[in-house]
Amino acid sequence: MSPDLVIGVDVGGTAIKAAAVDRDGRASARREVPTPQGGSAAVVERVAEVVREIEAEAGRARAIGVGWPTPLDPVRGVVLFDNKLGSAGVNIADLVSRATGRPACIENDANAAALAEYLYGAARGAGSVVLLTLGTGVGGGIVLNGDVWHGRDGAAGEVGHVKVHPGGRKCLFCGRRGCLEAYAGAQAILARYRRAGKKAEGMKDVVAAARRGEPLAVRIVSEMAEMIGMAVADLANILNPEIVVIGGGVARAGNILFRPIRAAVAREALPNVSKGLRVVPARLGNEAGTLGAAGCAWKRYGTSASSRTSTTGNRRSRIASSS
Amino acid sequence: MSPDLVIGVDVGGTAIKAAAVDRDGRASARREVPTPQGGSAAVVERVAEVVREIEAEAGRARAIGVGWPTPLDPVRGVVLFDNKLGSAGVNIADLVSRATGRPACIENDANAAALAEYLYGAARGAGSVVLLTLGTGVGGGIVLNGDVWHGRDGAAGEVGHVKVHPGGRKCLFCGRRGCLEAYAGAQAILARYRRAGKKAEGMKDVVAAARRGEPLAVRIVSEMAEMIGMAVADLANILNPEIVVIGGGVARAGNILFRPIRAAVAREALPNVSKGLRVVPARLGNEAGTLGAAGCAWKRYGTSASSRTSTTGNRRSRIASSS
Repeated sequence: MSPDLVIGVDVGGTAIKAAAVDRDGRASARREVPTPQGGSAAVVERVAEVVREIEAEAGRARAIGVGWPTPLDPVRGVVLFDNKLGSAGVNIADLVSRATGRPACIENDANAAALAEYLYGAARGAGSVVLLTLGTGVGGGIVLNGDVWHGRDGAAGEVGHVKVHPGGRKCLFCGRRGCLEAYAGAQAILARYRRAGKKAEGMKDVVAAARRGEPLAVRIVSEMAEMIGMAVADLANILNPEIVVIGGGVARAGNILFRPIRAAVAREALPNVSKGLRVVPARLGNEAGTLGAAGCAWKRYGTSASSRTSTTGNRRSRIASSS
Repeated sequence: MSPDLVIGVDVGGTAIKAAAVDRDGRASARREVPTPQGGSAAVVERVAEVVREIEAEAGRARAIGVGWPTPLDPVRGVVLFDNKLGSAGVNIADLVSRATGRPACIENDANAAALAEYLYGAARGAGSVVLLTLGTGVGGGIVLNGDVWHGRDGAAGEVGHVKVHPGGRKCLFCGRRGCLEAYAGAQAILARYRRAGKKAEGMKDVVAAARRGEPLAVRIVSEMAEMIGMAVADLANILNPEIVVIGGGVARAGNILFRPIRAAVAREALPNVSKGLRVVPARLGNEAGTLGAAGCAWKRYGTSASSRTSTTGNRRSRIASSS
């Protein structure tokens, strides 16, 4: 008898990562392949190949969860906006389900990462979670009472565009001034650092320079922490969450980042809101996307006995009814 | 046979307002009395007197909903923080239930107003609502999927303390700089206006002066709208709500306030978030608190047949089990 598992697929702009994941969030049969060019049909085809490979190794999957790097409607499985993969308006869940013969659901990648930290990582069991992901830009996801909060049209959790310094630095993504992303996204920080004639391959180098006491790097990292703290304080005043999880490579920097973030939150949020609020690094690293996509499949198809069947006839209605 | 109704009670720092409210949000037998000094026991006693008066006029109530001007735990019915009525740690729901012989629940006053606009007012039927209340200070409430979002310990929705101008004006309530309340709360605005030697009884006079083109009033009202717009943009980027409702007396000012607020939101929020977002004035005025408290009672006790009985024996267990 094959083990009870789903497959989580994390579709990014450059790579597709995937793995078989059991109910406890244990991953196996990991795969990583380049994201094909040529639109969403090519991507879905590649996803289906990866799913077949993983099933050959790990056994038949109960369902497929797909993380997709755009705003989307998770109930219908449809992409809403897309300037990366050309998938706007496409029902990715349906396409993946048809191509794999398995029930499938999709979730925005940042939301999937938040769900993963809630189900299996740093925020396990918390009643309310806000995740900030510090990458090229700054993404985010919100989990309330165990469910991702999507908002009116799948765009909730855009914490990278909270204004932390109105009239301040210009955001490379949205063009507005003073977004958190302009102070805490790697693209913005590295551009600023390099404009000053400094060398850095990535954020790691800027953090290392700050540890050495290099003045510009110290200023950049402390400004980054300060601005993250301001945004977290706003999020805390608005949502009063149990835990704020900060992910992305730079979140591994430790106290040089987290100490001033926590200090700024304590200073800027209302006392009853900041008291008891945990602000912690993410635990799942690069695997958060895959695990969160799998978590989405577990939440949606984990209790349905019929989801093991895979005849084409009822696949669509199963998707339509499982909101 | 008596009509099917609950009683909504809005306890404020200076007045207690109450009314019988039917399932459709129609109020009758309205009462308003001063809030007694002498702690929460005196307040509860006055609430019970008002309830008896209303029942004598309108008929027996199924349950009592109480709006309370502090952060609280609505599930347990307990007040968490209180610098107004001295009720911290007190189980107000239980006290009101004992004093009236009816099942009772409590809700924070700003949350109650948000619930009222969702159930009976400007946000009727919306999937996600953020209410900003412009009063002496700036309060707020969030309704997601039909339920008030309370956060970890009942403090969610503190939109008055979202930072709209870090390092800016000092907030009279929390002492931090740049809170929305420092730019949009009547206390802060009137203090600033009067310091400049101008006369105003209330915000109405400042708005009237702005309409006449009086330069300081124009500057104050346009800054107020700008800052509200910034805060709404942050809220929209974070929560992607369907509707933002702005209440409080000054929200009746109309386009002089709403046109620049909407312009600031369109400019500052991400395009997919601001597009389709409704930003509208509240509809229920001063009655929002009473109606929201009643709405809380309807949501909690509206379907339970046993809530019509009122023997002391099972009252407490009913409260404890109805979370």
